Amino acid sequence: MTQDENRLKAAAAESAAALVTDGMLVGLGSGTTAALAVNALGRRVREGLRIVGIPTSENTAAQARALGIPLCSLTEISQIDMAIDGADEVEEGSLHLIKGHGGALLREKIVANASKRLVIVVDESKLVRHLAQKFPVPAEVIPFGWQATARQLSDLGAKPSLRRNADGEPFISDGGHYILDCAFSPTVSAASLARELDHIVGLVEHGLFIGFTSEVHIASAGGLRVLRSQMTSV
Amino acid sequence: MTQDENRLKAAAAESAAALVTDGMLVGLGSGTTAALAVNALGRRVREGLRIVGIPTSENTAAQARALGIPLCSLTEISQIDMAIDGADEVEEGSLHLIKGHGGALLREKIVANASKRLVIVVDESKLVRHLAQKFPVPAEVIPFGWQATARQLSDLGAKPSLRRNADGEPFISDGGHYILDCAFSPTVSAASLARELDHIVGLVEHGLFIGFTSEVHIASAGGLRVLRSQMTSV
Repeated sequence: MTQDENRLKAAAAESAAALVTDGMLVGLGSGTTAALAVNALGRRVREGLRIVGIPTSENTAAQARALGIPLCSLTEISQIDMAIDGADEVEEGSLHLIKGHGGALLREKIVANASKRLVIVVDESKLVRHLAQKFPVPAEVIPFGWQATARQLSDLGAKPSLRRNADGEPFISDGGHYILDCAFSPTVSAASLARELDHIVGLVEHGLFIGFTSEVHIASAGGLRVLRSQMTSV
Repeated sequence: MTQDENRLKAAAAESAAALVTDGMLVGLGSGTTAALAVNALGRRVREGLRIVGIPTSENTAAQARALGIPLCSLTEISQIDMAIDGADEVEEGSLHLIKGHGGALLREKIVANASKRLVIVVDESKLVRHLAQKFPVPAEVIPFGWQATARQLSDLGAKPSLRRNADGEPFISDGGHYILDCAFSPTVSAASLARELDHIVGLVEHGLFIGFTSEVHIASAGGLRVLRSQMTSV
């Protein structure tokens, strides 16, 4: 990533953070792009914005604490005003997402699902015509019997691959689960795939975010672009 | 439970255990009734039966080890020949189940789902005309944001109640999750409810076992009864 690209992405993150207003409960996403938005929120908090953040990972919690953003746990509340997060793929027409490359998809999805609005920040390389054709869908699974779960994913047409750390041991999510990265054949519709994945026993959550997105702020060489969901009143 | 009732239940457990043959991989359920079947299998192993058990809880693993039943983890295999387990409710027509009162529903469902045959042992008090009319459906949920998950369950018509230990602290499952016991109104169809529950973000697994059961061995005052699923070739 060049400095120019980073600057463009920071501008998209600023634009998303500018939607936050006084008194909001704000879901704080995970990953490098979401971190730019958290930085922008930190600056606004120092300037007097009063918000409470709900972090989606331990890393984000540490970053927000260092920036002086007050935090609370989702356990204490049940509805969030707005969540800001990154994504691995954004489908242009539908604004459906793939998330989970960073390993925080479960908490990100719980926060997105509890939020009135989900605002996504990406660079334009993440925009795709159809989801899941290049990028695998991460599936967070129970370690107990994960091979049997992988077999069910294979039956759906996936090629599941257990995510591992550099030392070869299975990657463990914040929630204590494994991740199977599932490559799918290009013919699959993401929305119907998501419904099928929901029924798999042993699968905790998958990285397809269908119908969650309110708007996408896109860093592109031509400047900032914003795509808004037609389902959402803005 | 009287001695007579216990004797009848032990006979039903024996009858289920008698289905196991040499060389089988056998899922070993959890709870007091499943324990009777594990006892019966232990006796048959001492008499020369060669099987390998896959336990669904730490308690069952300890019991099976003490009885000399060789064990393996589901991680090493992906298909089980037969699982024997108890249930909290059995729907008479469909053989759909509610399980999870003992807190082991996640591993029990993973094992049941990986098994070619699921054999259930119950006493006749567990037979019902319609599931989930008296007994709440246990839902195993991610602790992070469990209130938001409970709200989704309420939106489906449930009255979710967080399961607690005697000391008032939340009960933690073997998998590190909370349990919400969800009372539903009597009008709900269990099969459609199960499909709805599958889509809830933050819910790991629920206690409705739809289409899993091959046969049910029932201890009743009139003697042993066996109900077989019409979907299963025996």
